[in-house]
Amino acid sequence: MADAPYKLILLRHGESEWNEKNLFTGWVDVNLTAKGEKEAVRGGELMKDAGLLPDIVHTSVQKRAIRTAQLALEAADRLWIPVERSWRLNERHYGALQGKDKAQTLAEFGEEQFMEWRRSYDVPPPELADGSEFSQSDDPRYATIPSELRPKTECLKDVVVRMLPYWYDSVVPDLLTGRTVLIAAHGNSLRALVKHLDGISDAEISGLNIPTGIPLAYELDADFRPVKKGGTYLDPEAAKASIEAVKNQGKKK
Amino acid sequence: MADAPYKLILLRHGESEWNEKNLFTGWVDVNLTAKGEKEAVRGGELMKDAGLLPDIVHTSVQKRAIRTAQLALEAADRLWIPVERSWRLNERHYGALQGKDKAQTLAEFGEEQFMEWRRSYDVPPPELADGSEFSQSDDPRYATIPSELRPKTECLKDVVVRMLPYWYDSVVPDLLTGRTVLIAAHGNSLRALVKHLDGISDAEISGLNIPTGIPLAYELDADFRPVKKGGTYLDPEAAKASIEAVKNQGKKK
Repeated sequence: MADAPYKLILLRHGESEWNEKNLFTGWVDVNLTAKGEKEAVRGGELMKDAGLLPDIVHTSVQKRAIRTAQLALEAADRLWIPVERSWRLNERHYGALQGKDKAQTLAEFGEEQFMEWRRSYDVPPPELADGSEFSQSDDPRYATIPSELRPKTECLKDVVVRMLPYWYDSVVPDLLTGRTVLIAAHGNSLRALVKHLDGISDAEISGLNIPTGIPLAYELDADFRPVKKGGTYLDPEAAKASIEAVKNQGKKK
Repeated sequence: MADAPYKLILLRHGESEWNEKNLFTGWVDVNLTAKGEKEAVRGGELMKDAGLLPDIVHTSVQKRAIRTAQLALEAADRLWIPVERSWRLNERHYGALQGKDKAQTLAEFGEEQFMEWRRSYDVPPPELADGSEFSQSDDPRYATIPSELRPKTECLKDVVVRMLPYWYDSVVPDLLTGRTVLIAAHGNSLRALVKHLDGISDAEISGLNIPTGIPLAYELDADFRPVKKGGTYLDPEAAKASIEAVKNQGKKK
């Protein structure tokens, strides 16, 4: 086993087709846009320029995170590293909101309900019906998950609960071998992980936004806690600008 | 454990940058051309159209095979399946010929020597020097292979010997679980595997060419031998045309 500090890199996928259309996505398997592809390549270039090169990559089973990993690793000349995937790294399941327009949903349900679904820690949206065109109940990639484990909606707390077993059982053992681990995933699965790592409270996590396409590097101590809380973005200026933009976006709605 | 027949799909990568330039490639990590990318997408479409969908993919550690798998799986909507990689599925190491122009090599060494290096079963080209710009001696992807195991040149027999442990230890166990296995690899690592599966003699293997980008499907019996010798190309007409073209190319040289 290797000694601390352990090296972890988090990468949130860039713009997807439904980000662009302003629809709630969740577990719907939409692709990256051309802009999202460019963000992924830039993420790989940032890792390469920093000399921070992953030895193994973990992704969700969703195309936008998988392709982000592929494009970033190609740009970093690390396509050949081992790959692991798990639904436990998936985006938050958005329940009955999946496929709905965000602006329409805001108008329909009002700002209080809208923000509760988006930002509360423990209030999930209504469940998505199995027969919905936006349901994954027949998707073969989830066939091995027993129905009682398969989400029909999730709040961020649910994501923390289903993500943590993967962190402990699959990521930590890779860190222990001394490998630099890249996790390519989603806004909310990464927020869940950062909440755990940085020890962010249930109340304060609502204020945390992780920018897309900018690798977030952590060094972890022997207890797998950050040496520096919050980690280090490989492009700190761009990360700051992106976080500000998201905050202002929130104000407009 | 599942019962036979087991399902195996072989996919040879399409045109690479050095195929196009007519250079010996071997372990040099060149990328696909735009034509090679299209071949990979078409390979994925053929699997999708045939309803023959891989549950797990094994690739070499070389970019042209990895990207072929990625593009084919994206076209087949199977990007999410588990991925395994091994140098044991790499292309034949071409020794001192790596980086050399094929036509110049033919002119320099004569047809007999040229064809012996290309098509004999057990005569490898001269070894590649460690300091060569076409050597992989400092490539981090091979850092865990002890030097005595790492090839400096290979004949097809050498490829059979280093590929078979991966077949037995990593691919067969996946087949035993009932999963449809895709192997995305190279002309000579796939020739080595087909030689083993179909029981082709050392003399006759020189006549076997595997077309690029056309999935070759095998059903295997309980002894992991083909139910139908030679398997089935998912586009038999295109495969036949491609094999004829390679034969004629050989005649011209």
